[in-house]
Amino acid sequence: MTITRADIDAAATRIAGHVHVTPVMRSDAFGLPLQFKLEHTQVTGSFKTRGAFNSVMTADVPAAGIVAASGGNHGAAAAHAAKSLGHDAHIFVPELAGPAKIDVIRQTGATLHIVEGAYADAAAAAKAHQTATGALNIHPFDAPATVAGQGTCFKEWDSQGLDADTLLIAIGGGGLISGALSWFQGRKIVGVETTTTNTMHAALAHGPETDISVSGICANALGAKRIGRLPYAIATANDLHSVLVTDDDVVTAQKQIWRHLRQLVEPAGAAGLAALLSGAYVPAKGEKVAILLCGANPAPIPI
Amino acid sequence: MTITRADIDAAATRIAGHVHVTPVMRSDAFGLPLQFKLEHTQVTGSFKTRGAFNSVMTADVPAAGIVAASGGNHGAAAAHAAKSLGHDAHIFVPELAGPAKIDVIRQTGATLHIVEGAYADAAAAAKAHQTATGALNIHPFDAPATVAGQGTCFKEWDSQGLDADTLLIAIGGGGLISGALSWFQGRKIVGVETTTTNTMHAALAHGPETDISVSGICANALGAKRIGRLPYAIATANDLHSVLVTDDDVVTAQKQIWRHLRQLVEPAGAAGLAALLSGAYVPAKGEKVAILLCGANPAPIPI
Repeated sequence: MTITRADIDAAATRIAGHVHVTPVMRSDAFGLPLQFKLEHTQVTGSFKTRGAFNSVMTADVPAAGIVAASGGNHGAAAAHAAKSLGHDAHIFVPELAGPAKIDVIRQTGATLHIVEGAYADAAAAAKAHQTATGALNIHPFDAPATVAGQGTCFKEWDSQGLDADTLLIAIGGGGLISGALSWFQGRKIVGVETTTTNTMHAALAHGPETDISVSGICANALGAKRIGRLPYAIATANDLHSVLVTDDDVVTAQKQIWRHLRQLVEPAGAAGLAALLSGAYVPAKGEKVAILLCGANPAPIPI
Repeated sequence: MTITRADIDAAATRIAGHVHVTPVMRSDAFGLPLQFKLEHTQVTGSFKTRGAFNSVMTADVPAAGIVAASGGNHGAAAAHAAKSLGHDAHIFVPELAGPAKIDVIRQTGATLHIVEGAYADAAAAAKAHQTATGALNIHPFDAPATVAGQGTCFKEWDSQGLDADTLLIAIGGGGLISGALSWFQGRKIVGVETTTTNTMHAALAHGPETDISVSGICANALGAKRIGRLPYAIATANDLHSVLVTDDDVVTAQKQIWRHLRQLVEPAGAAGLAALLSGAYVPAKGEKVAILLCGANPAPIPI
């Protein structure tokens, strides 16, 4: 199973008008020239909206509408896409999704279900809802339509003059990184995870069936328990580089992003820069590095 | 006295590499298609850095370095420009500058003087320092080099594909709006002030010598007591439109900017959108509107 550039082209055409063309900027403020894409300015505050629209628009949505389980950002995106397109939406989130992400879901008008426990418990509840009602379950990362949708972010960046040898991108369940690998065939892609949300890193070391124990400040955004099958296949076919950072590295990066770019991203949104600032990824002299800022639903809501 | 496009071209060449090319984006999320420039992502968090670099780089800076009085953003910009270029800097701010702006000034390594009272008291103290030491006083708005520097923001926006009939821009002392009027000769420019930081609106009604009583949530950014002489001359020569908004309008706009664009601007940075959302400015059907987000040193510091 591969996602082609043609799949991503088609997704981009499909979702145009429903999503922001997110801005890009360059800065020398971090000690080397860096390129950023401010994908956290996407509608609902994360890249997830791209995959959500592409998923809903390519599906035959039943009368029961859609259902999604989410640490928060996918739920907000799926809810927004479904409601915008006239469908019912039921979103199941664990408590750790936090007030910012939950508030965005509420604003869409979707039916919100807050589930005790972790993401896996929300996923089980969503599955039960799907079985009971026939609602369409929109997967956050392990589906071709999701990956093609996330890939539109990178097609767009290319069209905005991206000039990078290497891209640093956070990994949760693997949908976003799969979109990047599918679009940038042959470009060096570095996937960044925290030591306690390390699904891909664990899978590359121990195989794709490896379950991890999720915790830490990125748990509500990068908190999948196991890497997606499709993302794993795409990563291993495309020579993904994988690095780990700590929660402290993420907090430092988050503060530096505010200080130098006045962008307030959530912890997971700062993981890419954390890899660079912490030394988890060390570019060669002259290597051109680009970093995706991918989410901005921090808690507490700043305003 | 006019500032020409050639002055702005020269300023842009001069300050390139010291300032961010700030990103632009479009959104339909506010009920009509809008274009934004995220100038609050500028180095030190506001457009002021453009004018500050242009001022320091065109001056013969004495051994005593530079001095500036400021509600905060100009002080941060002047301090950063001076220190980056190897000069001493003394910055005088009133207490109301607030912790975020004061922190940015501290980070530059400039000598910070916090003055009791309002901006006018800080300006008097800066003037005394200038007299005593011979330091170069960098004016926040009423100087050709400042206006030409701020004008580079609009030259840059043009080069980024700006396609607007009308621009909404906040006014403090008038440096930024003068840069816009000088660059966009003939384009419709709407200057936005709050009812309690209304220097330009008062000057257009009652003459350029009109002093106002400053208060409200934009006081530490738009809090000049009287419009600059040069900005007044440029405004009256160029048919500036002037509208007023309330502090409540500003807060609403600030929240909407976070909600839809995930940009956390300070109150003054939201004034342009406030004019539109409040109905202070009503565009004609089909009128293409662009809004400058100009500052992001809100208090408290969000992270």
